[in-house]
Amino acid sequence: MNKDVLLKLLQEVATGTQTPQSAAQQLEYLACQDLGYAHVDHHRSLRKGFPEVIYGEGKSAEQIAGIMACMSSQERVILATRVDAGKARDVQGRFPDAQYHPEARMLVWSSAPPPPQGRGTVLVIAAGTSDLPVAMEAYITAQVMGNQVEKIIDVGVAGIHRLFRHREMLASASVLIVVAGMEGALPSVVAGMVSRPVIAVPTSIGYGVSLGGLTALFAMLNSCSSNVAVVNIDNGFGAGYVASMINRA
Amino acid sequence: MNKDVLLKLLQEVATGTQTPQSAAQQLEYLACQDLGYAHVDHHRSLRKGFPEVIYGEGKSAEQIAGIMACMSSQERVILATRVDAGKARDVQGRFPDAQYHPEARMLVWSSAPPPPQGRGTVLVIAAGTSDLPVAMEAYITAQVMGNQVEKIIDVGVAGIHRLFRHREMLASASVLIVVAGMEGALPSVVAGMVSRPVIAVPTSIGYGVSLGGLTALFAMLNSCSSNVAVVNIDNGFGAGYVASMINRA
Amino acid sequence: MNKDVLLKLLQEVATGTQTPQSAAQQLEYLACQDLGYAHVDHHRSLRKGFPEVIYGEGKSAEQIAGIMACMSSQERVILATRVDAGKARDVQGRFPDAQYHPEARMLVWSSAPPPPQGRGTVLVIAAGTSDLPVAMEAYITAQVMGNQVEKIIDVGVAGIHRLFRHREMLASASVLIVVAGMEGALPSVVAGMVSRPVIAVPTSIGYGVSLGGLTALFAMLNSCSSNVAVVNIDNGFGAGYVASMINRA
Amino acid sequence: MNKDVLLKLLQEVATGTQTPQSAAQQLEYLACQDLGYAHVDHHRSLRKGFPEVIYGEGKSAEQIAGIMACMSSQERVILATRVDAGKARDVQGRFPDAQYHPEARMLVWSSAPPPPQGRGTVLVIAAGTSDLPVAMEAYITAQVMGNQVEKIIDVGVAGIHRLFRHREMLASASVLIVVAGMEGALPSVVAGMVSRPVIAVPTSIGYGVSLGGLTALFAMLNSCSSNVAVVNIDNGFGAGYVASMINRA
Amino acid sequence: MNKDVLLKLLQEVATGTQTPQSAAQQLEYLACQDLGYAHVDHHRSLRKGFPEVIYGEGKSAEQIAGIMACMSSQERVILATRVDAGKARDVQGRFPDAQYHPEARMLVWSSAPPPPQGRGTVLVIAAGTSDLPVAMEAYITAQVMGNQVEKIIDVGVAGIHRLFRHREMLASASVLIVVAGMEGALPSVVAGMVSRPVIAVPTSIGYGVSLGGLTALFAMLNSCSSNVAVVNIDNGFGAGYVASMINRA
Amino acid sequence: MNKDVLLKLLQEVATGTQTPQSAAQQLEYLACQDLGYAHVDHHRSLRKGFPEVIYGEGKSAEQIAGIMACMSSQERVILATRVDAGKARDVQGRFPDAQYHPEARMLVWSSAPPPPQGRGTVLVIAAGTSDLPVAMEAYITAQVMGNQVEKIIDVGVAGIHRLFRHREMLASASVLIVVAGMEGALPSVVAGMVSRPVIAVPTSIGYGVSLGGLTALFAMLNSCSSNVAVVNIDNGFGAGYVASMINRA
Amino acid sequence: MNKDVLLKLLQEVATGTQTPQSAAQQLEYLACQDLGYAHVDHHRSLRKGFPEVIYGEGKSAEQIAGIMACMSSQERVILATRVDAGKARDVQGRFPDAQYHPEARMLVWSSAPPPPQGRGTVLVIAAGTSDLPVAMEAYITAQVMGNQVEKIIDVGVAGIHRLFRHREMLASASVLIVVAGMEGALPSVVAGMVSRPVIAVPTSIGYGVSLGGLTALFAMLNSCSSNVAVVNIDNGFGAGYVASMINRA
Amino acid sequence: MNKDVLLKLLQEVATGTQTPQSAAQQLEYLACQDLGYAHVDHHRSLRKGFPEVIYGEGKSAEQIAGIMACMSSQERVILATRVDAGKARDVQGRFPDAQYHPEARMLVWSSAPPPPQGRGTVLVIAAGTSDLPVAMEAYITAQVMGNQVEKIIDVGVAGIHRLFRHREMLASASVLIVVAGMEGALPSVVAGMVSRPVIAVPTSIGYGVSLGGLTALFAMLNSCSSNVAVVNIDNGFGAGYVASMINRA
Repeated sequence: MNKDVLLKLLQEVATGTQTPQSAAQQLEYLACQDLGYAHVDHHRSLRKGFPEVIYGEGKSAEQIAGIMACMSSQERVILATRVDAGKARDVQGRFPDAQYHPEARMLVWSSAPPPPQGRGTVLVIAAGTSDLPVAMEAYITAQVMGNQVEKIIDVGVAGIHRLFRHREMLASASVLIVVAGMEGALPSVVAGMVSRPVIAVPTSIGYGVSLGGLTALFAMLNSCSSNVAVVNIDNGFGAGYVASMINRA
Repeated sequence: MNKDVLLKLLQEVATGTQTPQSAAQQLEYLACQDLGYAHVDHHRSLRKGFPEVIYGEGKSAEQIAGIMACMSSQERVILATRVDAGKARDVQGRFPDAQYHPEARMLVWSSAPPPPQGRGTVLVIAAGTSDLPVAMEAYITAQVMGNQVEKIIDVGVAGIHRLFRHREMLASASVLIVVAGMEGALPSVVAGMVSRPVIAVPTSIGYGVSLGGLTALFAMLNSCSSNVAVVNIDNGFGAGYVASMINRA
Repeated sequence: MNKDVLLKLLQEVATGTQTPQSAAQQLEYLACQDLGYAHVDHHRSLRKGFPEVIYGEGKSAEQIAGIMACMSSQERVILATRVDAGKARDVQGRFPDAQYHPEARMLVWSSAPPPPQGRGTVLVIAAGTSDLPVAMEAYITAQVMGNQVEKIIDVGVAGIHRLFRHREMLASASVLIVVAGMEGALPSVVAGMVSRPVIAVPTSIGYGVSLGGLTALFAMLNSCSSNVAVVNIDNGFGAGYVASMINRA
Repeated sequence: MNKDVLLKLLQEVATGTQTPQSAAQQLEYLACQDLGYAHVDHHRSLRKGFPEVIYGEGKSAEQIAGIMACMSSQERVILATRVDAGKARDVQGRFPDAQYHPEARMLVWSSAPPPPQGRGTVLVIAAGTSDLPVAMEAYITAQVMGNQVEKIIDVGVAGIHRLFRHREMLASASVLIVVAGMEGALPSVVAGMVSRPVIAVPTSIGYGVSLGGLTALFAMLNSCSSNVAVVNIDNGFGAGYVASMINRA
Repeated sequence: MNKDVLLKLLQEVATGTQTPQSAAQQLEYLACQDLGYAHVDHHRSLRKGFPEVIYGEGKSAEQIAGIMACMSSQERVILATRVDAGKARDVQGRFPDAQYHPEARMLVWSSAPPPPQGRGTVLVIAAGTSDLPVAMEAYITAQVMGNQVEKIIDVGVAGIHRLFRHREMLASASVLIVVAGMEGALPSVVAGMVSRPVIAVPTSIGYGVSLGGLTALFAMLNSCSSNVAVVNIDNGFGAGYVASMINRA
Repeated sequence: MNKDVLLKLLQEVATGTQTPQSAAQQLEYLACQDLGYAHVDHHRSLRKGFPEVIYGEGKSAEQIAGIMACMSSQERVILATRVDAGKARDVQGRFPDAQYHPEARMLVWSSAPPPPQGRGTVLVIAAGTSDLPVAMEAYITAQVMGNQVEKIIDVGVAGIHRLFRHREMLASASVLIVVAGMEGALPSVVAGMVSRPVIAVPTSIGYGVSLGGLTALFAMLNSCSSNVAVVNIDNGFGAGYVASMINRA
Repeated sequence: MNKDVLLKLLQEVATGTQTPQSAAQQLEYLACQDLGYAHVDHHRSLRKGFPEVIYGEGKSAEQIAGIMACMSSQERVILATRVDAGKARDVQGRFPDAQYHPEARMLVWSSAPPPPQGRGTVLVIAAGTSDLPVAMEAYITAQVMGNQVEKIIDVGVAGIHRLFRHREMLASASVLIVVAGMEGALPSVVAGMVSRPVIAVPTSIGYGVSLGGLTALFAMLNSCSSNVAVVNIDNGFGAGYVASMINRA
Repeated sequence: MNKDVLLKLLQEVATGTQTPQSAAQQLEYLACQDLGYAHVDHHRSLRKGFPEVIYGEGKSAEQIAGIMACMSSQERVILATRVDAGKARDVQGRFPDAQYHPEARMLVWSSAPPPPQGRGTVLVIAAGTSDLPVAMEAYITAQVMGNQVEKIIDVGVAGIHRLFRHREMLASASVLIVVAGMEGALPSVVAGMVSRPVIAVPTSIGYGVSLGGLTALFAMLNSCSSNVAVVNIDNGFGAGYVASMINRA
């Protein structure tokens, strides 16, 4: 439920176009609609400035589309993460103008371009080519939330000079998202070069004692650079979201 | 090395008061002074806007004082973390105006009050009384770095109405630091109520499967609220530091 | 072996209709029938008030049907858990009136409706839509065991007001089952609101450091609310069973 | 805040002895008193039928006594857990009639004996002599909460006939608490013999791969008996509390 | 290389039928034949009384058959473990009289029945129906190695009276192999009833915190009965082998 | 309760010297004497051929002495493990003829030398000097249980020729106990050289990823030699006990 | 970028055949070519004496071929690891003279045989047949990097005499790579026999507590032989690479 | 036993000064002297070019001195690691010319300076001041083994320019030892800059998810630089030893 819908309703009450009772019912309905398998949280746009995001894993295409239908009357943009290609196709059957980003496994539906926001640029950096999908999830999330976003891919610490070529882009970013698997060393090095917050995203890329991303995660939490905070393994969406919150004016 | 020292040096070069050669030597010396047991990173103030912070664990009082002596000619403020009372007393023997915060185990020396910075208030919230030391480490760090800081203590989820009394203080904060041990649930609840970034700090408070804070850490990384990023267990300093970066204008 | 069968047998002995020797043989046979691959525990109804439940994982459809055949002469109800759709179809070939619940992967056969029991209502709460299958396993188990059961789905802590709408239903329940994955925070919050026992069920929903449900499990065991006890990850059946035991008059 | 205090207050409002405004202030004050280091939750007696319990670990004797002082005006009984002998002595300096149970490390203060409650007997069983402290924490908790409690000590599965001697006491209990370390097998065996809920408490007794109680905990969560729910390692208090909730009429 | 082949060779040397040089070459050849992908250890029969056993996992059918061909000239019996049905069929194409045990995933070839050995009976006990495959691996191994073997299936601790019916069979066994998954409690109970060594075999049966058998393994290693030794998870073969060693006269 | 005591009692019943009723009472009493903090299992000698062993960890000197007093009237030998020097001294104050083995932390009291038993020699091998205490616990246990025992110390795999010097002693042993920390490789090598059962005992010797003995334990459970069974970390007593069971005629 | 290409460029600058500006552009281009999904590090040959190696896991055949195309103009040899048969076929469609080693899952393209280097022989030893693929990855890597390489397969510690037959080959090697799964004991034994560095490679071969190779890894890191260093689980490539670095003259 | 002692003995045999029989006895004696608590491996100098090193942890001062006495007649140098100051003082009572290095906890006795060996310089790099003790253990080990050694301390990745100042020293080293705790990122960065083998040593410096050094260890094993091999946590000695092996001509 975005703010405009709410204001309009309250103005109708103020002007007597609508009784308080009927408005209350609508508010109740809007705030928290129970679909049986889901309680859609229409208030989230109001509380947090961005609507609820649909986590696609473990939901059927039908459930995803059902929640989208319920939200689409109230919201300007709907984001669904962790949606595989098959489910995406099924949902697009019902929402043909929803856009699917296969590399990031995200589905985006919007009735209007996001109003620009953010104090500066969000910069997404990935250590290796294999980290690309997670980096793209962060990239698209930040973009959909109205930020100016840029990216640098495959600049891992084994050839650290590749990173140094981009020193200016690093210095000018407002928030940095650094995505890395294996030993997870890149966020420490990047954070040591800038005076802005760095959101580190460990990925499950690697084998043996990469332990499905735990090693990169723990390394990032132990960063000897202090301007680093961390999100869950492969959680590109969360990184994009929190970076967006930080970048808000 | 703060910016003023650097500018003065370069102006002397520009005006011919000093040869480029002698300036280069000083810069080289200043940038990275080798104490034998430590390379003091004088450039960090320039690069990151705050000088290197001394991690006290595993360093002798003598080493801490040595690094402080080396920094004090260049910096306005020096912060040492994880300093126990005994070491603190020894260091204060040499730096009598250094202030010791026993509950946070921090030592702060400053030649001038920090210039105010920050767009808004940093709010520190602790789930329980036992989480107080970690919360205070975050509180003092953010304060020393020039932020307006406030705190709420002992509002854990077992009596969630205690948190709701402070709803306005939550809504008005610019960045929130939420400190919790045991099941680490508080950051999710807080983050669900605000539209600002939340830095979650797990603590090692608990027993059995609290696993020295791992359970709280993992819970926070799995937060179903998306505006949460996490730092290492008991890392109040890191939380204060990154919150400060976020809050910078 | 339900109590009636036993009493009838003993009365026959008492009235001389049957010799003690023949009765002993029948009891021996009934108590513990060896199928080669299974020892059916016919005494369990007597000892525990509900017959043995068939754990379907790792058993063939033929083994499941074999055990059901052996039990069906003695028991009013048979429950099989963790039965996938294929096996269920095969078993239904032999027990056409067995009912399959695909979302809960349970197979229920009964010759009569369960006699109502229980002091009050068992309330099943699930944090998210993805937790539905585990919640349904608990729901059906409690129902089959003769309880009045209700449910609330998708009221996770990221929008805690969704839960508060149901405050009365919470307050009036006799036992609560709370199902959650990811950070597993919901049981603490629910338990803080009621004065009845809460059975917490962690689910394997999540990724990265959800660790297949371990994080939710550990969080629940560390609950700062004291009226919480926990069962194994994804163990909806166990939660329904123990809640049923608690609810018994 | 117990119910009597609340009713008296509301009756005074009803009869005009007190204005709604002054009553509201008192309620506000009573509900959630902020001591600086703690928010005392005076409403908990109302919500949950038993006041907040003080977790002594990581709190100073002064903090414990401070919270007790704040509670003692409102509550009939105060319980503090994980209090070592030294702290206990210090607190008793201020509350001389508080009773200390050294084996359970609990401090109990009460202004009146607990009103009897509970439908039947709570039975505490411990596998070995070394599990006694945890068993006693459960025992005293259940007793203080108004239950009839009994106990059986050192009946581990290596000599299972020792347990069978007590078969009748098992059968007649309303709720059973089973405490065990090492391989944690006792709850499964006990639960197989009764038709009532069993609360299993793993202890940290053992060495090597007892892993500080994790092995016993995991074994109990995997119990092949279905009427078992589990609390945290060494959490005798939680077991006594939840058993008390179950036993309530 | 069995003892008879060796003796014959040495007698030929003693009687001059063969030169020491040619015998040495044969011995060298026989002792350790290098197939490129495997060094067949023909000496093992001599050193250990039973030939090398082929671990089928990660070997192709061709490699298995190659090693069998190399062994079959020297040995009376060949055992291959962890062979799936497909590989077994392929190997049987070359060794038609090799017998496949699908439930135990073992392939046995023998040119003669095993000479009876062993001081008494090896008894294999399995806690549940799902543990049957591992139990059968132990059963067949012990049988092939010349022991008298018996078995009891599905006598888990949730209905411990099922075990007690077999008390005499337990008491008369020379060595006991106890197979259990989930909480792994059965070996402790069995071992408490007998005065003979018990070999405990954890299985990977279970879910959640059964942790793929780790919980059962750790529980067994922590057994409060002292006459228990343990082998790896699902290692029925190893249990049968070591039981056979123990049972040897 | 040893067999002689039992037979004497039954003969008195047979000859009428004692009524069945009084004998039953004595048996009841003897079988399972309840000390409040312990249920002494007097039947264990009968069931298992060796009396209950007192696990000293977490028991007071007084409790140990109390159990010993209760056992000493019935048994020829009493063994207490994990008893530190201080407790031992206290117990010896009451049992002056109890012998303390400080390196093995064991207390042994016996009224007569153990009757010789065992088919052959039990051989205890330790990889390093630091493994000596655990090896001695195994050595003394086997000796007290009536076995012929020998030992070889410090023959780790880094200089494997040291082991080969003792080849004959290895070949002639009836059961082998192999004690090793760090990488735990010695049992595999020893077991590859003999045709008898090997009981492997991991120790907590090592640092870093020795993980308190877990690495040695897991290595031993993964032994590529099949005649290896394993006991808990540092469990020299268990190894000596199970070896004794194996060695029994 | 090999040294010849660089020198030629610089000589053209020196002789005026090319302007410094154009050379700089080429160098910039060559050093770090951005393919969008990868930054090819052409400088690596210069810095490290061997070009960047393509890690195939998580890259598409198209991406692999793209990087190869970019490298092939500059380098004499290209190595791609962890390439499955399907991807290999696709890449070979574009690079028909690339050679695929299926057992090692490696793809090698070279325009010329590697110039011989290395002070002596690199010897690869594998404990079992199942460790062959990892051993072959090490073997081919070392060979492609210009070393003389030899190998011994299936000489595990259960029949340690198989290893001793090859004592001379061990003594004459310059660097040894020892590959083992399960208990990972072989490197300790080998290292105890030689005075050269041993690179240990744990493999994921095994089951149960082999923990996907963690047990072998930890055992190797705890080796009681001091001339052992370790690489990641299944990392045959890394072992071959580091051995090659050691063997360089 | 160094080579000279051996040659002298054999020459005496060759010249008839000594009978083969007496020489054999001496060799047997020298090779493997049994002290009761230790088998001194006098052959190790011959086999490996450096005598056995005494691991001091878990050995008494008396045992250490006993082994030293036994070695001192045969060896030119004796090294004991993990010796605390107290034990060192006791050993020095008997070996007054043994030198103790408190920061590295090592005791070194030598009858002559080590003969120089090694192809080039061994360079020891430590990420932080707190890693100094482990770095010094590596430094002294390599030095005692006859290498030219240099060191750089406190050049962690948070200020990576501090490392770059030493680029030439890095490029000229023959082997590099890189010591780091926390996120363990330094070896990857260093290895990316050189073409020589890097031995990485994780330290237990850090807190929270540094997990006692496991995080640094796992990060190093996952290094995206291929010329890295790793030793156990805090194992400075092993790193110095293996580097020495690599550096040998």
